Amino acid sequence: MTEPARLSLNTATVKDQWTLTECIEACVRHGIGGIAPWRDKLIECGVDEAARRIRDAGLRVSGLCRGGWYTVDGRLSDAVVDDNFRAVDEAEAIGAECLVMVVGGLSPGSRDIVAARELVAEGLQRTLEYARLARVPVAIEPLHPMYAADRACVNTVGQALDLCDMLGTGIGVALDVYHVWWDPDLAAGIERAGSEQLLAFHICDWLVPTNDLLLDRGMPGDGVIDLSGIKGMVDATGYKGLIEVEIFSEHDWWTRDPDEVLRIMVERGRSIT
Amino acid sequence: MTEPARLSLNTATVKDQWTLTECIEACVRHGIGGIAPWRDKLIECGVDEAARRIRDAGLRVSGLCRGGWYTVDGRLSDAVVDDNFRAVDEAEAIGAECLVMVVGGLSPGSRDIVAARELVAEGLQRTLEYARLARVPVAIEPLHPMYAADRACVNTVGQALDLCDMLGTGIGVALDVYHVWWDPDLAAGIERAGSEQLLAFHICDWLVPTNDLLLDRGMPGDGVIDLSGIKGMVDATGYKGLIEVEIFSEHDWWTRDPDEVLRIMVERGRSIT
Repeated sequence: MTEPARLSLNTATVKDQWTLTECIEACVRHGIGGIAPWRDKLIECGVDEAARRIRDAGLRVSGLCRGGWYTVDGRLSDAVVDDNFRAVDEAEAIGAECLVMVVGGLSPGSRDIVAARELVAEGLQRTLEYARLARVPVAIEPLHPMYAADRACVNTVGQALDLCDMLGTGIGVALDVYHVWWDPDLAAGIERAGSEQLLAFHICDWLVPTNDLLLDRGMPGDGVIDLSGIKGMVDATGYKGLIEVEIFSEHDWWTRDPDEVLRIMVERGRSIT
Repeated sequence: MTEPARLSLNTATVKDQWTLTECIEACVRHGIGGIAPWRDKLIECGVDEAARRIRDAGLRVSGLCRGGWYTVDGRLSDAVVDDNFRAVDEAEAIGAECLVMVVGGLSPGSRDIVAARELVAEGLQRTLEYARLARVPVAIEPLHPMYAADRACVNTVGQALDLCDMLGTGIGVALDVYHVWWDPDLAAGIERAGSEQLLAFHICDWLVPTNDLLLDRGMPGDGVIDLSGIKGMVDATGYKGLIEVEIFSEHDWWTRDPDEVLRIMVERGRSIT
């Protein structure tokens, strides 16, 4: 049984319904232990104001979403580097346990995924140097291979860990079940990461059928992912972080009463052993 | 430049427009060297009739689509085993260079992908024993991870080759760029397969954006897959099979004049080095 105090609300889960302030208040109301803001909601609230409210609410911050997008200008532009520095600053200001990186897909007009991956490695290194000074852990989120072209060319835990090993300390992996549940090497990857490189653990569910590549994620329990099984692998590493619920759901959960969403999220959490 | 004689028309590419007989005649008309029927079109034509027409047209048969679906009854049922035996018989009758296997996803109501993979291995072994007697090569098609739940729980070339190595002779891989282009281990997987285990090579393209998980594949050249690059890896193995074009495209290619589809397919083939 996963108690609500172990859960974290990723603000994307109620993206269309609530501001960050409303999310913070709701976490307290539902006994949820942490929050993971997206940067747009953080900026909207104001970083210092958000930091104060989160601290006053006694919430942990399981992560800040998100840095990365290194490939968007076809080279490592100053704009991209600077934006990632700002993301580090924001993560530090709110006491985020990691900065989650969606690294970017192919550069515009390019078919060269090897080049994209090299650019990502270069970008991560630049961000990491800055993040180490701020003591903000950088968490590469391997994204499902269906996002390789347009969101992230890092697509498996093993590939992300190879990058981490190359880049050194201060960097690890954000494990989202939606992206990795299918991977025949998942158990080996989680074990390899261990508690040192496993920086975040995100849950939701894979629906059958899935009607949209991006915005049709399921509430934990409504799909086919063996959540208790994967949590068992994560627990075995000694991972002490929160379990973050991140659901993109244009036609279902984003249309519901957000208190109902959190009530069901807490209930489903309890059924994860 | 890939000449049309090196191409094979997978009948799915003009699924809504033509019967198998019409596909055969069109391949001759466009100088396309081979065909790969789906079983529904083959049965509709009649297996013996189809075999005669394909032979008379001088076409190679790059594969028969498809056997597999081992997990659909939650156990290896007689119905599934027998259907795969029939698929082997049909592949033999038309002189198919391989029987393409879409192995099946999770069993109904199950979240256990490890169990699904064990069932698939058991099913492949049963089919393979029968296929060896008929001298029909069995080709596991690793499907994109976005189909792991509902179509195939074998999702990478490496995973498919591990299965092949376990099962022995007479079995290899059908490599479809759509499913594998994103894989950081793709080059290594193709090299490992070599010409002995690389039994088929399918092309199409990954569109950005992709609007449907199943039915929005692109014509080669319209998307982001490095087709010449991957073909180079395949060529390096000494692969002598055809290059099969398989496009599922509900709102575009399936709505066009099929002769236009083949004309463009031939033209795009020439641009693949």
